[in-house]
Amino acid sequence: MRATVMYGAGDVRIESVPDARVVESTDALVTVTRAAICGSDLWPYKSMEPSETGRRMGHEFIGVVEDVGADVHTMKAGELVIAPFVWSDGTCVFCRAGLQPSCLHGGRYGADGVDGGQGEAVRVPQADGTLVVLPVGRDDALMPSLLTLTDVMATGHHAALSAEVGPGKTVAVVGDGAVGLCGVIAARRLGAERIILLGRHPDRIALAEDFGATDVVSERGDQAIERVRELSDGFGAHSVLECVGLEQSTVTALSSVRPGGAVGRVGVPQEESIPEGVTTFFDNVTIAGGPAPARAYIEELLPDVLEGRIEPGRVFDRFTNLDGVPDGYREMNDREAIKVMVEP
Amino acid sequence: MRATVMYGAGDVRIESVPDARVVESTDALVTVTRAAICGSDLWPYKSMEPSETGRRMGHEFIGVVEDVGADVHTMKAGELVIAPFVWSDGTCVFCRAGLQPSCLHGGRYGADGVDGGQGEAVRVPQADGTLVVLPVGRDDALMPSLLTLTDVMATGHHAALSAEVGPGKTVAVVGDGAVGLCGVIAARRLGAERIILLGRHPDRIALAEDFGATDVVSERGDQAIERVRELSDGFGAHSVLECVGLEQSTVTALSSVRPGGAVGRVGVPQEESIPEGVTTFFDNVTIAGGPAPARAYIEELLPDVLEGRIEPGRVFDRFTNLDGVPDGYREMNDREAIKVMVEP
Repeated sequence: MRATVMYGAGDVRIESVPDARVVESTDALVTVTRAAICGSDLWPYKSMEPSETGRRMGHEFIGVVEDVGADVHTMKAGELVIAPFVWSDGTCVFCRAGLQPSCLHGGRYGADGVDGGQGEAVRVPQADGTLVVLPVGRDDALMPSLLTLTDVMATGHHAALSAEVGPGKTVAVVGDGAVGLCGVIAARRLGAERIILLGRHPDRIALAEDFGATDVVSERGDQAIERVRELSDGFGAHSVLECVGLEQSTVTALSSVRPGGAVGRVGVPQEESIPEGVTTFFDNVTIAGGPAPARAYIEELLPDVLEGRIEPGRVFDRFTNLDGVPDGYREMNDREAIKVMVEP
Repeated sequence: MRATVMYGAGDVRIESVPDARVVESTDALVTVTRAAICGSDLWPYKSMEPSETGRRMGHEFIGVVEDVGADVHTMKAGELVIAPFVWSDGTCVFCRAGLQPSCLHGGRYGADGVDGGQGEAVRVPQADGTLVVLPVGRDDALMPSLLTLTDVMATGHHAALSAEVGPGKTVAVVGDGAVGLCGVIAARRLGAERIILLGRHPDRIALAEDFGATDVVSERGDQAIERVRELSDGFGAHSVLECVGLEQSTVTALSSVRPGGAVGRVGVPQEESIPEGVTTFFDNVTIAGGPAPARAYIEELLPDVLEGRIEPGRVFDRFTNLDGVPDGYREMNDREAIKVMVEP
């Protein structure tokens, strides 16, 4: 079968790889019908050391079940399923707590003999704990929005929950990438009164406004922080969604929140440490977030997608097949595309 | 009147200062009947640069109202009142949100012309927003426990709430000082199933066990972290209370929490930044806390003290008058005393 392999920074290839198949009794074999390129795929695209063996890519996909192991009971061949961006057993202490990215027996796609999502098929381990059967056809018009539930919309929702967004609150969203845009959707869905997007790209800003952003701050650094304060009674936002992961954006987020407020971090951080020089203790600021439990959120957000109340699929502005994936990486990296959907 | 003045590290004196009196119409004049020395008073005691004018000390006190300004309506002369460790107007956006340490018109004792609590009397600004009338006599046997509500018990409670302590959870309390001991009380009060105290002083450990600690970890550094994990199913505690404020204790706290858990920081930090090298993002760890809203918690905790359900006053193990305050600082700094009560 064909799949996406990255061999180093900027070096993405479509290659023949061994066919995916059921290995463990808890596996499902899924033919990918839609996949996506993630903002986090751009970190290795920018910085990966050259590798002779390469790295299988992709962790956002929807597909059709072709085969299941003997211990898989919640799906059968022919059903359409959606995959969260990590696989998880659904039974461990962390899965039961709704924190599937910390599953004791879970893992990542594209590692340890598991296929990546940007390919023709994937062996999905722990299928019962991971995959959710979708009640639509494989080419349903809602496919872009459904695909966002694998990661980007779940991540925006996680940012909003971590930042304690709620009715009447003023929310700042740092970053106008696909996660930030989904953060706007999530903030509105949770009842935020004012939603301030920090971003600079006209097309993304327009989409954010459609999604519910009430204000846009295009300044950077201290000026951005000052503008957010001006827009929030001089105090800063109640809730700030950090949707980038750079040191500068983290400083901006932590400096834009009011006393007693919360920052939800979901941008995969370049540096895991909280930057120095940011004072949150004396202001009783809460810092929360991390990898989103997409598996838990799919069930929560699915009705809103199916009934059209949210349209996160609008973050996709490029559509291609497998051969177009390398170009898709380049377009996202160059900010020509917000997010790329792949129909293998 | 006589009051405590610090002139530099290790240099605490009892001196004559101008009599406290009502200045603003929102002031109350309070004769101090009980005061305390706080762990945070030890920071300047260790490090204060020599000063010719000195610094008035103390922010934990109970006293009798002697006089009030024309705009004070919730207390009158002769009533016994308890003072949270900061004063606050009770009406601003942050006070209404229950975050009095961030009051827009509040401030600290011992600064800007306001007296310190370790003296004969205090002019309390914003008296209506700050002081709470106590329904007991000035020498009631509950006085030690009531006095802890000014700061140390409120702070332990804040650590527990910030760390999301709740029924069935495993809690680690980093630090066996008075705040840590009150953190144990708070964790038990909130229903924690297992309470692990990290501390090394036999007298404090014994008290912690009386307060509800189920396990004690006396190791330090990586060994302490490993022991906490062993005591919590290998995963770390659900909730960790950081009650010291040193870099090492903060690292220990952030490293002892399980994925999805929360760390409540209340130890006044030496360095406000989160130490580098601590990875909390991928584990979805929440970091919260700061100065406790004692004013809000006094009302919440007062019934438990009055009815004897909690006895935080047991953290006091030295009792003295004003003349004994310099010795009290030394004893606390040398760890000879857990906490000192002063009867001016």
